[in-house]
Amino acid sequence: MYIAVDLGGTNIRAAHYKSNGELIARAKRSTHAKDGNEAVLDRLIEMIGEVMPPIASDAKAIAIGAPGPLNPFSGIVLRAPNLPGWVDFPLQKIIEERLKIPCVIGNDANLAAMGEWKFGAGRGHADVLYLTISTGIGGGVISGGKLILGKSGMATELGHIVVAPDGAVCGCGQRGHLEAMASGPAIAKTAQARLRTHAGSISSIINLVNGDIDQVTAAHVGEAAQAGDPIAMSLIVEAGRFIGRAIADFCHVFNPSIVILGGGVAINCGDLLLEPARAAMRSRVMSSIYLRDCQIVQAQLGDDVGLLGALALAVETFGE
Amino acid sequence: MYIAVDLGGTNIRAAHYKSNGELIARAKRSTHAKDGNEAVLDRLIEMIGEVMPPIASDAKAIAIGAPGPLNPFSGIVLRAPNLPGWVDFPLQKIIEERLKIPCVIGNDANLAAMGEWKFGAGRGHADVLYLTISTGIGGGVISGGKLILGKSGMATELGHIVVAPDGAVCGCGQRGHLEAMASGPAIAKTAQARLRTHAGSISSIINLVNGDIDQVTAAHVGEAAQAGDPIAMSLIVEAGRFIGRAIADFCHVFNPSIVILGGGVAINCGDLLLEPARAAMRSRVMSSIYLRDCQIVQAQLGDDVGLLGALALAVETFGE
Repeated sequence: MYIAVDLGGTNIRAAHYKSNGELIARAKRSTHAKDGNEAVLDRLIEMIGEVMPPIASDAKAIAIGAPGPLNPFSGIVLRAPNLPGWVDFPLQKIIEERLKIPCVIGNDANLAAMGEWKFGAGRGHADVLYLTISTGIGGGVISGGKLILGKSGMATELGHIVVAPDGAVCGCGQRGHLEAMASGPAIAKTAQARLRTHAGSISSIINLVNGDIDQVTAAHVGEAAQAGDPIAMSLIVEAGRFIGRAIADFCHVFNPSIVILGGGVAINCGDLLLEPARAAMRSRVMSSIYLRDCQIVQAQLGDDVGLLGALALAVETFGE
Repeated sequence: MYIAVDLGGTNIRAAHYKSNGELIARAKRSTHAKDGNEAVLDRLIEMIGEVMPPIASDAKAIAIGAPGPLNPFSGIVLRAPNLPGWVDFPLQKIIEERLKIPCVIGNDANLAAMGEWKFGAGRGHADVLYLTISTGIGGGVISGGKLILGKSGMATELGHIVVAPDGAVCGCGQRGHLEAMASGPAIAKTAQARLRTHAGSISSIINLVNGDIDQVTAAHVGEAAQAGDPIAMSLIVEAGRFIGRAIADFCHVFNPSIVILGGGVAINCGDLLLEPARAAMRSRVMSSIYLRDCQIVQAQLGDDVGLLGALALAVETFGE
């Protein structure tokens, strides 16, 4: 039995699972990040208490997924977006000292990859490429049955490879990264620019925001695209193409047996995004070997991906 | 004791090593690829015989490095550049049947990475990124102490990621790959184009080929650059920048603790190529975390990299 925690900027989720994924108990609360790191930590520990088995020693370990760069080897969160104060924060050590149970931490995109691998779309595969298309673009890769971490756990930042050398500046400061061209905010920004041109005035996206172009999000673009708006559709196709081209490169780099797309943008847009991604991937790989039995599919775990990812990490680290 | 074989388009090398890298016997002959695959295979087996220990059963296994796409799991060479006839060739099975010794095969760039990791510049590291800059650009990655192979051993084709979407067409047919922008032939082609312009006529590269611009190779460019020719130097700097930018992306993907550059172009050009690569890498990573203790260095094993790489594969596969 394991305790899994999904620490997000908006919500904290905690659950008590058997190692096969069977849910015993769960809890969910708002993070209230502005209360500061001590308050968030207290809340997190309180929630672990709520889902704890009656005999605490029945829980073999606690696994926590957290946002942002962290070092899974030292258990230190380097910096957590949306959690001010979490800078060089020794989360693993604090949890182990307070709760007297082994703890392991991992970044949310890596754990989502592990969750989909063990319990979702990637079951049965040993070489999984997972991309989350959301506010940012993150990734996780299982290669030969092992999560790729790199020297300090900073590997597979798959949103931060250049796909357009002269493209938009990324949140990280570099130019033309995949995240700068195909994330939710990137789609929204391109949409806003295009709607401000003459041609844009005929788009139904405008109606979704009552004419206030500044309010356009990727969700609006997705909704209008689903309804057949040509400008919205072209925006999603462009993002899908960038994603598919990047996936072709990742095929050459990782030779995965499955590519899984998660995150709000991928889930909301579905095949509107996945089809152009598939077409771009197919046309950009250098050999059909990379396509044999390798499909781009949607993630399956929905909101539970963080918890099941943490469980997968616990099982990988501490055994069945 | 292991037998290591480096099967190249030009030469075949075979050696008998102790697992610690101590050389017992070695042999080298021309491949004479045009004789056909049966003749090359016979030559290869003959050479293995030459370096075999007196009691053949003292050799625990044979490891063979071969060019081109191959499947290390099935032991099949899919297609070997410069070895016509080697198409879907079951090399491992043939060797095992003829010599009654376990055999394992790997592609030359992956084995070079393993060789540098176990016996060269990467000793002591667990996360090694190796790039060979030569006629092509290939790569190998050790992540968490394990070679990355992918589903069918086609991973880490690191020359085949897009670095210039509108750039030259690559040998593989795709546009703007690193190999198309920074390999030896790419440098030569750019040099020839530039020498044909008015400005090019003052370059000393011209003298190295007695005015026959069609004969210019990357080696000529490197030689002229070492002698201070500004056009040659700018060509090497441009190639180095493409390599450094790609390495920045690979840092985000693999978070290596060392980056090793091998292959003729990297070895001949030395810091003329490595310095612009280092500068580009430094300026293009999204966080200084990737640079901590992570250096770009030259490969150390020279012509023995293929043999020592095969030995490293044997040791990893069959134990010390």
